[in-house]
Amino acid sequence: MPVSKTQSPSLAPRQATAHDVARIAGVSQSAVSRAFTQGASISEEMRQRVLDAAAQIGYRPNFIARSLITRRSNTIAVVAGYLQNQFYPEVLEALSQRLDRIGYRILLFPADPLGDSDPILEEILRFRVDAVLLASSSLSSRLAAECRRAGAPVILVNRTIDDPGVSSVTGDNVAGARLIAQFLAAAGHRRFGFVSGLENSSTSRDREAGFNGWLQEQGLGAPLRAVGHYQFDAAREAARTLLARRDRPDAIFCANDHTALAVIETARHEFGLQVGGDVSVVGFDDAGAASWPSFSLTTYSQPIAAMVEQVVSVLEGLLADPTAPARQQRTPGKLIVRASTRLPASGLSERDGVRTWRP
Amino acid sequence: MPVSKTQSPSLAPRQATAHDVARIAGVSQSAVSRAFTQGASISEEMRQRVLDAAAQIGYRPNFIARSLITRRSNTIAVVAGYLQNQFYPEVLEALSQRLDRIGYRILLFPADPLGDSDPILEEILRFRVDAVLLASSSLSSRLAAECRRAGAPVILVNRTIDDPGVSSVTGDNVAGARLIAQFLAAAGHRRFGFVSGLENSSTSRDREAGFNGWLQEQGLGAPLRAVGHYQFDAAREAARTLLARRDRPDAIFCANDHTALAVIETARHEFGLQVGGDVSVVGFDDAGAASWPSFSLTTYSQPIAAMVEQVVSVLEGLLADPTAPARQQRTPGKLIVRASTRLPASGLSERDGVRTWRP
Repeated sequence: MPVSKTQSPSLAPRQATAHDVARIAGVSQSAVSRAFTQGASISEEMRQRVLDAAAQIGYRPNFIARSLITRRSNTIAVVAGYLQNQFYPEVLEALSQRLDRIGYRILLFPADPLGDSDPILEEILRFRVDAVLLASSSLSSRLAAECRRAGAPVILVNRTIDDPGVSSVTGDNVAGARLIAQFLAAAGHRRFGFVSGLENSSTSRDREAGFNGWLQEQGLGAPLRAVGHYQFDAAREAARTLLARRDRPDAIFCANDHTALAVIETARHEFGLQVGGDVSVVGFDDAGAASWPSFSLTTYSQPIAAMVEQVVSVLEGLLADPTAPARQQRTPGKLIVRASTRLPASGLSERDGVRTWRP
Repeated sequence: MPVSKTQSPSLAPRQATAHDVARIAGVSQSAVSRAFTQGASISEEMRQRVLDAAAQIGYRPNFIARSLITRRSNTIAVVAGYLQNQFYPEVLEALSQRLDRIGYRILLFPADPLGDSDPILEEILRFRVDAVLLASSSLSSRLAAECRRAGAPVILVNRTIDDPGVSSVTGDNVAGARLIAQFLAAAGHRRFGFVSGLENSSTSRDREAGFNGWLQEQGLGAPLRAVGHYQFDAAREAARTLLARRDRPDAIFCANDHTALAVIETARHEFGLQVGGDVSVVGFDDAGAASWPSFSLTTYSQPIAAMVEQVVSVLEGLLADPTAPARQQRTPGKLIVRASTRLPASGLSERDGVRTWRP
């Protein structure tokens, strides 16, 4: 596409071209191209001659020019926010290393802090990314369909939407939260609390539904509830709301670990409560500081390596065949029991220093 | 550059082109280009006609094609690792939001865990990024020069190299560490320890030099020393080494906050020491959990917003004029005093709930 000069304030120094390499090596431009293309037919002798000429003048194949021909940019847009929640940097680092191994790069877009990333999709698509991973964000069915039409399939990571046409990879939110309810009841708790994340997030909603569902099936009533927005300070405020009540809960399930750490800080340092004795606190993720001795958080794990493998599996399927049906993957986790909760009389087992619980 | 078919396993669906838009809108292709170029000369009526036609068929200007003409990709490579150290996700999120405002995107490359990112530079340059930000990594002078020649100036973030030709943005490592030594001595400490980061990192080296320099000038001797590699588990092991000694230090300066949090965990939960009483622990960053009540870490701050502004200022200078001289920026911080250290008798002041110390 022609572009007016107003977009071009200053040019980088002229770079060596495939033409220059061909001239110096005394080969055709097509041979230069083949020398830099994995699996292409070229003799080892000619390949070496091309590589030597390229090294001599500092030539590199231009991935951008190549992407116009292959219609592949070898970049994956990742929309991620909430990086103060250590789960997301861990996912980002694992994804970045894993995609590196299959030749893809992450183009990072900041997430809308309100969890609604729709407006920037338009811009993402201009970069001709090969796919879009939305971590910590959701999007509308309409925009997911638009991305698909634009040749950039979307995968939601740690979120879902109610549309069988959109792929997603999540932890086992409903089953994990049901297991947490069952665990707390087995430990003798009867006054339950829940600190939510963002109200519009599927993750918080599914975890709350699982937790409340099991409690209600057992006739244990609905938990007290406060909104933590997945933000540390808001979660501390939510903890104050719950713990200042005369009928305060003695078992608080938090929509993720980051929220649970905030609740522990408040229970311990503002209310003088012994966490794991006076009050049990449970999270969801098993990320970051959850395993540090100061928190020793009981939590339902979302195993990041396994989730990243599922993301890559779904991604490779969609890259190979953009018309393939969407997949909604759930990665199972475990209820990892540490010192932030009272213990039930049975169901505990330990392996490799990790204690888990099953009813 | 021509590319053989082996690189192109499947093509995305055909996308609408500027030619299609021109035909539907009944205008020239040049008018389509001008309609999508900020500041280009085009009537509002014609611009609207083009935008309507583009919307009708889902056309978007192709940033990749454009970048071949402008030789700008509007992407900045960021090499970042150690995301378990909350300082880096905070920097990454702030950078991503700030660069977004000036129209640049981050292409994320994982850092070599050993802190030597040289090998992947070759690949970074193939993406024709406009600049390279190396966070948590360094590189050789030779490779920095090669990047400059390739039209992608390098800025080191939170690292330096001994080359006036390479730009960098860091905190005030030497002055901050000197102030920490002075603060600990003022609080009455005489048995000092230092837990280093990566031995080859300029940041750890500069902080150690500042700390030791002040102590030696005062005739207070060299601190005991252990290597923490900037890794949580290695830092816990380093703390064990120091604290198990009969002449164990009662004041430990750690090369960053992440290391200091590990030292606190070990001192408190393995040695039963009261942090801030039996032993003082100081970090460097003021990031992540440093301010949480469980740690309440005394630390020298690296103000992320100010550092990101300096990165953007250096970056804009280099983008406007790639031949501009390199700049080495130091962002001053403050010694923020919390409960992880004993207090000196004088020099403390408090403002907006933040307590700082000056001699």
